[in-house]
Amino acid sequence: MLNEDELTNEPANTSHDDQHVELTAAGNEMSASFLAAKKRSDETKEALEKDPSKFRMLTGDRPTGRLHLGHYFGSIKERVRLQNKGVQTNIIIADYQVITDRDTTEHIQDNVLNLVLDYLAAGIDPNKTMIYTHSAVPAENQLMLPFLSLVTEAELLRNPTVKSEMEASGHDLTGLLLTYPVHQACDILFCKANVVPIGKDNLPHVELTRTIARRFNKRYAKKKAVFREPMALLSDAPEIPGLDGRKMSKSYGNSIMLGATAEETAKLIKKSPTDSERRITFDPVNRPQVSALLTTAALCTGRSAQEIAEEIGDAGAGALKAYVTKSVNEFLAPHRERRAELAKDMDSIRDILHDGNKRANEIAEETLDQVRSAMGMVY
Amino acid sequence: MLNEDELTNEPANTSHDDQHVELTAAGNEMSASFLAAKKRSDETKEALEKDPSKFRMLTGDRPTGRLHLGHYFGSIKERVRLQNKGVQTNIIIADYQVITDRDTTEHIQDNVLNLVLDYLAAGIDPNKTMIYTHSAVPAENQLMLPFLSLVTEAELLRNPTVKSEMEASGHDLTGLLLTYPVHQACDILFCKANVVPIGKDNLPHVELTRTIARRFNKRYAKKKAVFREPMALLSDAPEIPGLDGRKMSKSYGNSIMLGATAEETAKLIKKSPTDSERRITFDPVNRPQVSALLTTAALCTGRSAQEIAEEIGDAGAGALKAYVTKSVNEFLAPHRERRAELAKDMDSIRDILHDGNKRANEIAEETLDQVRSAMGMVY
Repeated sequence: MLNEDELTNEPANTSHDDQHVELTAAGNEMSASFLAAKKRSDETKEALEKDPSKFRMLTGDRPTGRLHLGHYFGSIKERVRLQNKGVQTNIIIADYQVITDRDTTEHIQDNVLNLVLDYLAAGIDPNKTMIYTHSAVPAENQLMLPFLSLVTEAELLRNPTVKSEMEASGHDLTGLLLTYPVHQACDILFCKANVVPIGKDNLPHVELTRTIARRFNKRYAKKKAVFREPMALLSDAPEIPGLDGRKMSKSYGNSIMLGATAEETAKLIKKSPTDSERRITFDPVNRPQVSALLTTAALCTGRSAQEIAEEIGDAGAGALKAYVTKSVNEFLAPHRERRAELAKDMDSIRDILHDGNKRANEIAEETLDQVRSAMGMVY
Repeated sequence: MLNEDELTNEPANTSHDDQHVELTAAGNEMSASFLAAKKRSDETKEALEKDPSKFRMLTGDRPTGRLHLGHYFGSIKERVRLQNKGVQTNIIIADYQVITDRDTTEHIQDNVLNLVLDYLAAGIDPNKTMIYTHSAVPAENQLMLPFLSLVTEAELLRNPTVKSEMEASGHDLTGLLLTYPVHQACDILFCKANVVPIGKDNLPHVELTRTIARRFNKRYAKKKAVFREPMALLSDAPEIPGLDGRKMSKSYGNSIMLGATAEETAKLIKKSPTDSERRITFDPVNRPQVSALLTTAALCTGRSAQEIAEEIGDAGAGALKAYVTKSVNEFLAPHRERRAELAKDMDSIRDILHDGNKRANEIAEETLDQVRSAMGMVY
């Protein structure tokens, strides 16, 4: 097993990159389309709560590191809830997305297997949820070819999220990063998912998927549609800051890993920075560090951050950290216990992935056959 | 069977788009790299004649229509020669390339099966040569994902052939046209081809394939290379003009289809334009139409165009056309006879394609396994 601290921890492109749903300045020009998407999302959420079995969900993660509390509260928890509600759930481990903006696949096997461990420990049930990796499903990946013919270069270049991800990576824009929204369309459409939980930043990708589905049907499947247009489920989970109040990030060392030990967690919380004011108050704008600790404890205990702050009051940062440590470790104890138990039999973990990959291949081959047939590519 | 006149007839992107090898004005800035490629090509040709069994060739066609005399003399003839010399020959029917610059796959099944008919009638032996279609080989297409990560957007946009093809098509630049040189790299590398016969216009694509092979090996397969860098075999076949002296093109109706009847051929030649000068001379610059007819007859008879011109002399265009008709129809008679015979059993033609696709899948899956393994994507 690798040292977890050495690994990056990034949300998947198909997952919650950004939990904010309010409009930013940059988002003003797309506010109309955002509001339309928000409305569709709200309607879909309502319909989904009423009749979950009508919905097939696609979600997933980039295996660039281990899952942390931000992933848990931002998306994993909701996936488990929807799975248990009866939504047909599909989780893609997007291994090819690791190389959209980096030149190495180092530790990828370990990252993938640890993702599966965390999914299962968090309550994902492989009998209900299909877990699979990109690289194992050729028929899904083949959809890239017809789908790339349905979008223009201009549409690819216009994608604001691709641009900002490229800039954030400090890496040249690769052909794979440029076209990954089309690859996401393959993820969503190969299994005919109709709901995709995302953060606001991924809206352009779901919009592109809708466009591709529409164009494919119009161009090749006029009589009987092959694809349906998926709905984005915009996340309304609260944003979870890193322990120091900044965005959770590997380089900041401010994330609590689901799979870390209680001791590692205690150590990480102990060294997290606070401010010079003794009295603990919840004030995210002026006291981001103390407030991040309070938010973390609040999420893990189900209490409000204000209530915790008042309870600690003048006992100061030491007492706060002790409370956060206890809250997090108590909350994660069952997860970690299940995780450790599961990790004793990695062959079973591999089997679960192999089963998921097998099912994904069956589904992908069926969809690809429909696509070939609609396009007349049957010889 | 469809009316052949209704179909386009375009050279495959992997084939001889342009038989000219001399430098054009636009090619000046790449003259150094062109000359280097020409030198490598000449050396490869020499090595190939000495020891053909060391070479694996990838070539192919876009199934946008039927094959004509230009395809035959420009590439099919040489493929048959190299196959029979012992070069391992692979022919891809690039069905996904049909949609790089158009919005329809109309008649594609018919076009594909007729390509196979023409290959076999021309002497391609399915026991020696693997014939397969893009759409049938998911593991090959999956290579698009890792390969797209090895090139930048800037490199894709810089490709001069992609730009000129986009302009010629009058169609927006699709994501598939932008990335098709990467797809060609998949074609060449999945079967580890080391020679690719091309026209000059496709040099940038082979260069990109070489780059992708090199980068993949450097990034993921330092210890044991997965790919070898293929060599372009620059065509030195003469350019065959359409019957009217212009470029062969569907819209000009100036191409003699290999599979047309003798009567259709006679009719087409009869209505081809000539000039007002009675005496027949070979003068491509000043008398392109008469010279195109002479070139056509020369290729079919193995005589020189000048010799034929002198022989006809003052007998004029009527006599020339009669001679061309006779030459072409005599030359194509055995091909057409074999073709008609083969067309009686289209199930066998389909079987040949299915066998080729099966072999291509086996090879592609083996290569994809090597790629997954090199990248650590083994779970």
